[in-house]
Amino acid sequence: MSDLDASRFWLDALKWDENGMIPAIAQDATSGRVVMFAWMNRESLLQTVASGKAVYWSRSRQRLWRKGEESGYCQNVISIRADCDGDVLLLSVDQVGGIACHTGRQSCFFLELNGERWVPVDPVLQDPKEIYAQ
Amino acid sequence: MSDLDASRFWLDALKWDENGMIPAIAQDATSGRVVMFAWMNRESLLQTVASGKAVYWSRSRQRLWRKGEESGYCQNVISIRADCDGDVLLLSVDQVGGIACHTGRQSCFFLELNGERWVPVDPVLQDPKEIYAQ
Repeated sequence: MSDLDASRFWLDALKWDENGMIPAIAQDATSGRVVMFAWMNRESLLQTVASGKAVYWSRSRQRLWRKGEESGYCQNVISIRADCDGDVLLLSVDQVGGIACHTGRQSCFFLELNGERWVPVDPVLQDPKEIYAQ
Repeated sequence: MSDLDASRFWLDALKWDENGMIPAIAQDATSGRVVMFAWMNRESLLQTVASGKAVYWSRSRQRLWRKGEESGYCQNVISIRADCDGDVLLLSVDQVGGIACHTGRQSCFFLELNGERWVPVDPVLQDPKEIYAQ
């Protein structure tokens, strides 16, 4: 795939897939941990830049997903990077509450491959029932 | 999407997309930087686990892509994690040569959004002509 053309307007320089989506990785600026992965369309990326808070496109719900809209654990966006060919985004975020995952963990990537099984290796910081109670 | 069923055999517990692919994020274990993003199919993931070196599926070339096969800059895999719903992988790697990107940079994510443009913000560590000369 060809390299991102940095002379183009930023939104047009990105390579959107056949569904108008681009993958987005969120990395916590403080811990350095990759906390989640989601998808964005143009509208969600525009709203992310405009608001300074991560807005994804929920493919399962087919609507904009303002991260933290239910849990309160939003992501303040510190910087946005694109990769060399412009088809993936990396967000450096300040993860409010220190919890990105709906299971109450810091990161969604809490399952480590160990032999033939995926093993949860990170602690639950808050009971999901509490997170989604309000 | 439903959570990963950790009681299942690891390969079957993952959620492969309609093309039999799963996204994979590679994070350098030393620097903590996200160095690249690529796709895997079952065969590439199996070969990754068997060899201890990252093997992706090149969608553009439609073949297995042993990272570093041309450049020599392979990725030794330290651990593999899956996310909560089992549809994304996170590889912790030792990036040989400290260069993951074909542009000769540490990471593929070297373009930062600044106003209306993507700006390269990381140094080129080695001329790509040298990397791919052999």
